[in-house]
Amino acid sequence: MDQHAHAISPANKEAVDRFARGDALLIGVAPAHEVLPALANGWSLSHAGAPLPYAEMCGPMRGALCGAMLFEGWAETVDEADAALLSGAVRLHSNHDIGAVAPMAGVISPSMGCFLVENPAFGNRVATIINEGVAREVLRCGANGPGVIARLRKLNAATLPAIAAALPSALPLREIMAEAALMGDELHQRNVAASLLFLRRLLPRLEDAAELGAYFAGTVQFFLNLGMAASKALLDPLGGISGCSLVTAMSRNGVQFAIRVSGCGERWFGAPAPLPDGSYWEPFGPEDANPDIGDSAIVETAGAGGFLLPGAPAVHRAVGCRGAAHAAAIAREMRLITVAESPFLLTSPADDTYAPFGIDVELVARHGVTPAITTGIAGRIAGTGMIGAGIVRAPLACFTAAVGALQSEQVQMRGAR
Amino acid sequence: MDQHAHAISPANKEAVDRFARGDALLIGVAPAHEVLPALANGWSLSHAGAPLPYAEMCGPMRGALCGAMLFEGWAETVDEADAALLSGAVRLHSNHDIGAVAPMAGVISPSMGCFLVENPAFGNRVATIINEGVAREVLRCGANGPGVIARLRKLNAATLPAIAAALPSALPLREIMAEAALMGDELHQRNVAASLLFLRRLLPRLEDAAELGAYFAGTVQFFLNLGMAASKALLDPLGGISGCSLVTAMSRNGVQFAIRVSGCGERWFGAPAPLPDGSYWEPFGPEDANPDIGDSAIVETAGAGGFLLPGAPAVHRAVGCRGAAHAAAIAREMRLITVAESPFLLTSPADDTYAPFGIDVELVARHGVTPAITTGIAGRIAGTGMIGAGIVRAPLACFTAAVGALQSEQVQMRGAR
Repeated sequence: MDQHAHAISPANKEAVDRFARGDALLIGVAPAHEVLPALANGWSLSHAGAPLPYAEMCGPMRGALCGAMLFEGWAETVDEADAALLSGAVRLHSNHDIGAVAPMAGVISPSMGCFLVENPAFGNRVATIINEGVAREVLRCGANGPGVIARLRKLNAATLPAIAAALPSALPLREIMAEAALMGDELHQRNVAASLLFLRRLLPRLEDAAELGAYFAGTVQFFLNLGMAASKALLDPLGGISGCSLVTAMSRNGVQFAIRVSGCGERWFGAPAPLPDGSYWEPFGPEDANPDIGDSAIVETAGAGGFLLPGAPAVHRAVGCRGAAHAAAIAREMRLITVAESPFLLTSPADDTYAPFGIDVELVARHGVTPAITTGIAGRIAGTGMIGAGIVRAPLACFTAAVGALQSEQVQMRGAR
Repeated sequence: MDQHAHAISPANKEAVDRFARGDALLIGVAPAHEVLPALANGWSLSHAGAPLPYAEMCGPMRGALCGAMLFEGWAETVDEADAALLSGAVRLHSNHDIGAVAPMAGVISPSMGCFLVENPAFGNRVATIINEGVAREVLRCGANGPGVIARLRKLNAATLPAIAAALPSALPLREIMAEAALMGDELHQRNVAASLLFLRRLLPRLEDAAELGAYFAGTVQFFLNLGMAASKALLDPLGGISGCSLVTAMSRNGVQFAIRVSGCGERWFGAPAPLPDGSYWEPFGPEDANPDIGDSAIVETAGAGGFLLPGAPAVHRAVGCRGAAHAAAIAREMRLITVAESPFLLTSPADDTYAPFGIDVELVARHGVTPAITTGIAGRIAGTGMIGAGIVRAPLACFTAAVGALQSEQVQMRGAR
């Protein structure tokens, strides 16, 4: 039963209805320069979070952008890449602004292959890149050594084409997310089941089984990128509903945590990104951590990740959740700040409990409770890579700023009538 | 923490230690007549549960034995097969007695392909057949029409060889069971994760991806048979420990529910098989059900199935469990009658809770609480097939009979000294 249904405003209800009517289908694979027009010409890169100038970016974001320039052949060395980026010779975009999402630094360059996800009820599309696998040294965490670049080349030249060759014409990602939620994935730090359920869909048309066998055997977070793209594809149609106070995106560029709210369209409301409360991989600790980074909080916006913790006990230890009671306490808090329940993500099929969905900035501001996000942690020094995982709470200031903007917009609208 | 460890007898502790030292590796595939000597010559078939004469068998068991004769080409019609079986022309064996297990009627015939599972710490081996998939009309539930026999032929001629060609030299089944338990499988009525984790192990050497893709896409209970064989391979070394009161097997032939107890070796202690308390598939109901049947309760003997319900919410509805509180209540009862915890099956990684393991016939008799088993339900009329799933409680009389036998054996041993 939806405990919130009686209190919802018409604008918020419209948003919840659009979410329920949506679906997310993987419809194909193509290079970024073909599916993301912003990356079609010249030196252009995109990154996670709200826009910000290169000089203000954090270490892992700068490391990843430099690595992307090496991958594209636009620079020979990291120093050369860094100088070009500092000089302004490269156009930088926010992924969300150009119709994409990607985890951690989230850097996308023109010749990276992209998965393309469509929401058929509304016709909108979202692109994402292929997951690099779980390792410390990955581009998404700012590592850019020769091994990282070589892995990126192999992923794009061999793995992604092998997946593309085996894809059915439209692969239902929302359905996979729903089933994986029943199998202990919270779809942010754990995607074991979703990755295997995806693989099963490829099997009838699989040709290069050896290539994909090795990749999927080791890439338990494969589905993360697809779950993010599916979440954005489901959420984008909720944008721009007048007076709607529901969050349509949360994202972090490693400096600012920023959100979008339906009633304010594509405007970002930011605040300094917090440090995650995490489990660190040896020999790293909190002093090595970069503030929270990545587009991946889009899965929490859609009711997964930290909003799905009670149904994903296997991920608790990895993110520093102290067990079932702690997970339940977080879930109760998330119910305080949401207006509905996910139409497809069950936390407990035995009790018909669906994940809380529909983060309302007004409820967040009223209760002083902010979204909980299960997140990866990048080292703050460029090149370090991934150093742990944890839980981060979104900063309250994003939400109070959005409440203020919504109110002044409502005042203006009344004035214009 | 193991709440029972302080009270355990030396004989029971030896059994628990042997279980912990064991492993279960899938080492190959071969026809039954090669790996099960009892089926090597003449007309010989084996079946689930303790031995009993054909004339006393239930409908689905007779239907399955007739189907196996059609599959082997030993009869042209079901009537002809039935007459031959009634005449005593076919030697019948209990699967457990010949080193095999199989679900429901569990019939194995000489030319069926078998998976061979080894426990390397003790060198013992167990065979099982390939799962037919989830459908009403399956041989294991006594259906024997032309479609059933044709499916069996295809499974043995195409599917099983394709799996065999892709098998690594030793595939660790215990490890797959442990991971699947974290992904919502209780490994009896739900094997979705285990089946996919198994498939992932095949992928690097997979050639006939089309054949296996179609099979695995539709066969969510694939791993049941392997989990059963792994459970028996882990449990068989526990047999024959003098004075040990732990259950080493539970099995049902559709008429009798029977158990083996370590201290009494391979002797079966039986009682009338109860009717499961179940969820029935339309248009069937309890009046159509056969009493509990199959070797599959070996997974409960090893700490899975009904002993793992709290960690497998996705299976609750299918077996008529009324939610998390009901599952927790069953788990508390299972802890009352067990002396240890599974060394590998976590019910909640967040709380470090392992499944109850080591069913003690003396504790069962003392508390009057019997093992809970998540079970499939066969129609009682031969040929009907599967009609539902549910939870069945083992009959108390098996356990009290075993307690009496253990006591008289101890008396004899003292007399002999």
